[in-house]
Amino acid sequence: MTVAALSESELLERIFPRLNRGPRVNAAVLLGPGDDAAIVAAPDGRTVISIDTQVEDQDFRLEWNNGYRTSGYDVGWKAAAQNLSDINAMGARATSLVVSLTMPPATAVSWVEDFADGLTAGLRGLGAPDCAVAGGDLGRGRELAVSVAILGSLDGGDPVLRSGARPGDTLALAGTVGRAAAGLALLESDIPVHTLSGEQRALIDTQCRPRPPLAAGPLARRAGATAMMDISDGLVRDGGRMAAASGGVLNLDPDALKALAVPLLPAAELLGIEPLDWVLGGGEDHGLLATFPAGLQLPPGFTAIGSVEAPAPMDGTGVKIAGRAADAVGWDHFAD
Amino acid sequence: MTVAALSESELLERIFPRLNRGPRVNAAVLLGPGDDAAIVAAPDGRTVISIDTQVEDQDFRLEWNNGYRTSGYDVGWKAAAQNLSDINAMGARATSLVVSLTMPPATAVSWVEDFADGLTAGLRGLGAPDCAVAGGDLGRGRELAVSVAILGSLDGGDPVLRSGARPGDTLALAGTVGRAAAGLALLESDIPVHTLSGEQRALIDTQCRPRPPLAAGPLARRAGATAMMDISDGLVRDGGRMAAASGGVLNLDPDALKALAVPLLPAAELLGIEPLDWVLGGGEDHGLLATFPAGLQLPPGFTAIGSVEAPAPMDGTGVKIAGRAADAVGWDHFAD
Repeated sequence: MTVAALSESELLERIFPRLNRGPRVNAAVLLGPGDDAAIVAAPDGRTVISIDTQVEDQDFRLEWNNGYRTSGYDVGWKAAAQNLSDINAMGARATSLVVSLTMPPATAVSWVEDFADGLTAGLRGLGAPDCAVAGGDLGRGRELAVSVAILGSLDGGDPVLRSGARPGDTLALAGTVGRAAAGLALLESDIPVHTLSGEQRALIDTQCRPRPPLAAGPLARRAGATAMMDISDGLVRDGGRMAAASGGVLNLDPDALKALAVPLLPAAELLGIEPLDWVLGGGEDHGLLATFPAGLQLPPGFTAIGSVEAPAPMDGTGVKIAGRAADAVGWDHFAD
Repeated sequence: MTVAALSESELLERIFPRLNRGPRVNAAVLLGPGDDAAIVAAPDGRTVISIDTQVEDQDFRLEWNNGYRTSGYDVGWKAAAQNLSDINAMGARATSLVVSLTMPPATAVSWVEDFADGLTAGLRGLGAPDCAVAGGDLGRGRELAVSVAILGSLDGGDPVLRSGARPGDTLALAGTVGRAAAGLALLESDIPVHTLSGEQRALIDTQCRPRPPLAAGPLARRAGATAMMDISDGLVRDGGRMAAASGGVLNLDPDALKALAVPLLPAAELLGIEPLDWVLGGGEDHGLLATFPAGLQLPPGFTAIGSVEAPAPMDGTGVKIAGRAADAVGWDHFAD
C-alpha cells in the first residue's frame, strides 16, 4: 500500500504510535502533536535550535550502486542523529524535535512506518531519552525529503561556540571521522554489499546510521571546552571554519591522524584509496571537534589530535598538519 | 548566474544581508546564524514551535497555467506567512524562525536573493517585527522546497487550543476565507493573467502572498477565546477538526457565509464557479477561526460567523450550515 491510498489523518494514525515510545515520558513537551503548534519547555529561558534537511539522491540513495537499499529506518535514524549532533555541538541537551516529511505518492506506507521507527530508535539508541517528537508536517513531492528542526536546552550553562579556540589550547576529537566517507565509497563502488566483511559493513552502517557521541557535548561544556563544533563536512573543512571563527590555526598531529585511519583500512585496501583522505575530508560521522585549555584533563570520550596556534603573519587562519597547510577537501553542496 | 556557480558560503554571503533588515533589532535571538545551532530567548520558559514545508509543483508552480510566474519573493513571503499563522493560531507571538532551502543547481542566484527579500518582507509586512531568522540550511534537490520551523512566545499566557470550544460559544473569523482558493482557480485557468482586473489580481495575491491577521491571535487569547486554529485546509475541514477536538458541532450562519463570498464574485463570475465552494473549502488565506463565550464582545478584527452547539445524539461532531451537515470539501494532501 502506498501513501496515495491514505488520507493525511490516516497516515498520521499509523505514524504517531511509533513515535515517543519507550520507558521515559518526555517532560519537556508541554503540548504535543495535534494543534497548530507544539509547546516545549525551555527551563532556563532559552532554546537552542537547528534545522537540517535530507533529500533523496543528494543525502541518500534509495538503492546504492553496490546493491544496498536505504530503509526508512536508516533515514529516520540519520535524521535523528544529524540533528541531535547539532545540539550536542553547542554543549546542549536535546529536548524535542519537529519533523517535516515530503514523499512521492508512490511511497510505501511501510517505508513511512519504518522511518518513524528509525527516528524513535535513533533518539533512544543514541542516548537522547529526553528528546520527543513534538509535531510535524506531511506533504507530497517528487522526491523524498526530511526536514527536522530540533530544540535543546543548555540547562543554565554557556554555549560552546566555534569562535572560542585560543592559541595553546589542545584540539581534541570525540567520536570518529572518516568512517561514513569510507562507507559512502563502499556504497558507490561496484563491490556487491553481500560480499563485504563485517568491518566493511560497519563502515556502511556509519554512513546510514551515524552514531554521534551525544554525551560528549555537555561533558565538554562542563569541563571547560573553549570551542566546539560537529564535523559534518570533514575535519579540514570544518576545522577551517573553527580556525576562521576563532582567528587561529589548528595544527593536526600526524600520528593522531594515522591512528584515526586504522579503522578505515578494511575499506581503503579493498578500494585502493588513501584512508587519510577520508580522515581529513570525510563528514557525516558527526564526531565532535573541541578545544580545551592546555593541561586540562580531557573529558571521557575525547582524544587529543592537535593544538591551536596563533596565526603567523601573512599566513591567515586555517588547518595545518605538522605545521604544513592542509587542503580543504570536504564536501560542498553547490560547487561543481 | 545559478547557485551551482557558488559555494555554500558564497551563497550565504548573498543571503544574510537580506535577512533581518529593518529598524528593530530582534532581542529574542541570542545567537544567530553561523554556529552549529542558534539560541533564542524563551522569556516565560516555554517555546511554541511549528514546522511547515512548501514544495514546487505541490504548493506552488514556478509558472502557472495563466502565465503568472511565482517569484522567489512570493515563496519567501508565503513561507513567512504560513508559519507565522501557526504561531498566531496558538495566541502566541513569533520570536524567530529557521529556514531550510532545497534548490536544483540551475536555480538562479537572483531567485534565492528574491526569496530572502520576500521572507524578510513577509515578517515585516505582516506585523511580526519581533521575528528574526535565527539560522538555516541550504541543500540541493531536484525540486525547490522550503521548510521553515518557527518559534513563538506566549508571554506567560495560556495557549488557545482547538479543543476548547463549548456549546453556546460564538464562532468567529478574523481575516478572510476563499480568496486564496479563488486566486488558485485563476492561476490554473486559461484566462491570461494580464487580462485580469485589479480585484481578480488581488485574489492571486492572496494565494501567492497571503496576509494572515497576525494581531488577531494574541488579541483573541487575551480576550478569552475558548478555541482557536488557523484555516489552512478550508473552513469546513478545519472547522471539523475543531469540532472533533472540542466534542461539539460548529453551526455556520448562511448569511455570514454569503457575505464572505462577496469579495470572490469577480473571480466566480469569470470562471462560472459557485463562490461558496471557495468560502467553505478553500484554504491558504490563513484566516483565524476562534470561539468566544456567548455575549463577549469580539476583539477587533473578528466577525461572528456561527455558533457552537452540543452534538445531537447519533449525530457526532462536525460542521453544519443552518443546522444541516456541510460536506468536507477541503484539500487533502494524499487522497486521490
